[in-house]
Amino acid sequence: MSASPVVSGSVAARLAAYRQLIVERLAAAVPSGEPSRHLYQLAADQVAQAGKGLRPALCIATCGAYGGDSALALNSAVALELLHNAFLIHDDIEDGSLYRHSRPTLHARTGIPIAINVGDALLAIGLGPLLDNTELLGGATALRVLREIEYMLRQSLEGQAMELGWVHDNRCDVSERDYLRMVLKKTAWYTCIQPCRIGSLVATGSGANLDRFNAFGFYLGAAFQVQDDLLNLLGDAGRYGKEALGDLWEGKRTLMLIHLLRSCTENERSRLEQFLGEPRERRQDRDVRWAWGLMDRYGCVEHARLAARHLAAAARRAFEGAYADAQPGEDREFIAGLVDYVVEREA
Amino acid sequence: MSASPVVSGSVAARLAAYRQLIVERLAAAVPSGEPSRHLYQLAADQVAQAGKGLRPALCIATCGAYGGDSALALNSAVALELLHNAFLIHDDIEDGSLYRHSRPTLHARTGIPIAINVGDALLAIGLGPLLDNTELLGGATALRVLREIEYMLRQSLEGQAMELGWVHDNRCDVSERDYLRMVLKKTAWYTCIQPCRIGSLVATGSGANLDRFNAFGFYLGAAFQVQDDLLNLLGDAGRYGKEALGDLWEGKRTLMLIHLLRSCTENERSRLEQFLGEPRERRQDRDVRWAWGLMDRYGCVEHARLAARHLAAAARRAFEGAYADAQPGEDREFIAGLVDYVVEREA
Repeated sequence: MSASPVVSGSVAARLAAYRQLIVERLAAAVPSGEPSRHLYQLAADQVAQAGKGLRPALCIATCGAYGGDSALALNSAVALELLHNAFLIHDDIEDGSLYRHSRPTLHARTGIPIAINVGDALLAIGLGPLLDNTELLGGATALRVLREIEYMLRQSLEGQAMELGWVHDNRCDVSERDYLRMVLKKTAWYTCIQPCRIGSLVATGSGANLDRFNAFGFYLGAAFQVQDDLLNLLGDAGRYGKEALGDLWEGKRTLMLIHLLRSCTENERSRLEQFLGEPRERRQDRDVRWAWGLMDRYGCVEHARLAARHLAAAARRAFEGAYADAQPGEDREFIAGLVDYVVEREA
Repeated sequence: MSASPVVSGSVAARLAAYRQLIVERLAAAVPSGEPSRHLYQLAADQVAQAGKGLRPALCIATCGAYGGDSALALNSAVALELLHNAFLIHDDIEDGSLYRHSRPTLHARTGIPIAINVGDALLAIGLGPLLDNTELLGGATALRVLREIEYMLRQSLEGQAMELGWVHDNRCDVSERDYLRMVLKKTAWYTCIQPCRIGSLVATGSGANLDRFNAFGFYLGAAFQVQDDLLNLLGDAGRYGKEALGDLWEGKRTLMLIHLLRSCTENERSRLEQFLGEPRERRQDRDVRWAWGLMDRYGCVEHARLAARHLAAAARRAFEGAYADAQPGEDREFIAGLVDYVVEREA
């Protein structure tokens, strides 16, 4: 049931095409004036780094699949991408991540104070296109979209708090259920559920029945996150663009780590707990390699790959329900094709 | 033209009374559920620390002075206080501030990652009451208030970027004009201008002529900030609640420092530049004391006090224009009395 390279290729091409629809608005949303060197130039540079544009694409495609002109979704799509970039900056600080897109993260270049402020600015700038929705969609729909955004922001920040709390408290008893709940909040809401909901909302002008996207968005978002975690461990850093084994350096509670903690011997577990309890800067390369070797020995990667496949299968089933009344065509096909794309991508 | 202690006392009593109007809503705005220990409990604790409540008071009083029921302003007042608390958390990280309200700042207690996330959550939570304005004020006014907030957020973040940039680049040529422009953005917009504009907007339902508050709000906000800078240097830490000489430890470009850099000898200036160029953690107590002694010798405090008095006088004049068509009464009197209050307060 896996997609052929042709389908994945066409998903990538469609992703690029959706991205093209917002690229100019996205650049124009960031003010070009002063203060430039410590604010807007940094914000523009952040936004210009070509991400996949998954969130805006899902929003625009869902709008199209529900018969809406893609123009109706563009403000919201731009806002989603601005907020995503704000999250990336703050997350990289919070996780102590040093590389993204194969270059030093913003705070690694500017220091934490300026980077926090640029992230905040992108949150504020993201409000602009959502308010511009008033003229395009009317006040009532614009306010409904804002309500969706407010809810999504809280979900994301709750998920982030869960994950940060686990690292902070050196929790070694996190279950797969906990992990999936964290991912629902941290990733799935803003990456998948929300873009679908907003796309449908702007197309139909109705906030009724938006919950039909929640299961699909959760499974798709969770599959996306597990694949992201796998790429972090397996990807060659040059291609994936983050540090090699970055999640292990950061002590993130991934499915692989959860499986390892559950599978290893008592002695190994005790050494792992000690390793995870150290502050990142005191971790040693040889310990990271050791933990990675253990993951290999206990089949943690295969375990996570299997989970990603199960999640993708669940997403495929949920898609049929979520998009049952959507119009056939390129937009709907793209969304269906995303399921294979997110678990097969290599960057 | 200075206020008697009685007037200042009554301003403080009115401040407390306005604060009382929102204290329950403010507490209720922060969710009480999970994740609690690393998110909502910290956010609630932050919000519960009794600040002066200047921003909500100015918003509610302006609403009243323009004939509006104070109930119309409460959502916006709560939002302003939530956003203010979000700023405080991020600013304390960005400035490296270790104490506020006589206790360690949030990031000093939880670490930077969790504190950034709590600040972000308070920004998101602040959107809630602004969306609740829809039912209370109608969609059009709710959206106008949101547009005001979006503009204010950008002004604040621009001001913060200016100040962070000066410290980052060790700029020693900042002029008083630069300082006032920074303060207009960093402090005056969100502390004074915006609360007045929103108070009038919700009272009258009209966004026309809101600019009449800008000059008053600027002068009041600048007087407030200069007094804040003075208290930081002069206040006994127990009363003011921040570190003694915190701004000097942080290398902030205050009016006192700007005056000092302009007044001292070439040798002193060169040593000051070196001192300011060091990262905070490498600064020595004896150097901070030395800089403080120089400020004393060159009359920097008197200079800043004079500036605060001039700004307060300008605020008094601007008040007459801004509130010319406001109704006489307690609300209008409170706002007039604020001018003396902000430059006479000792905490």
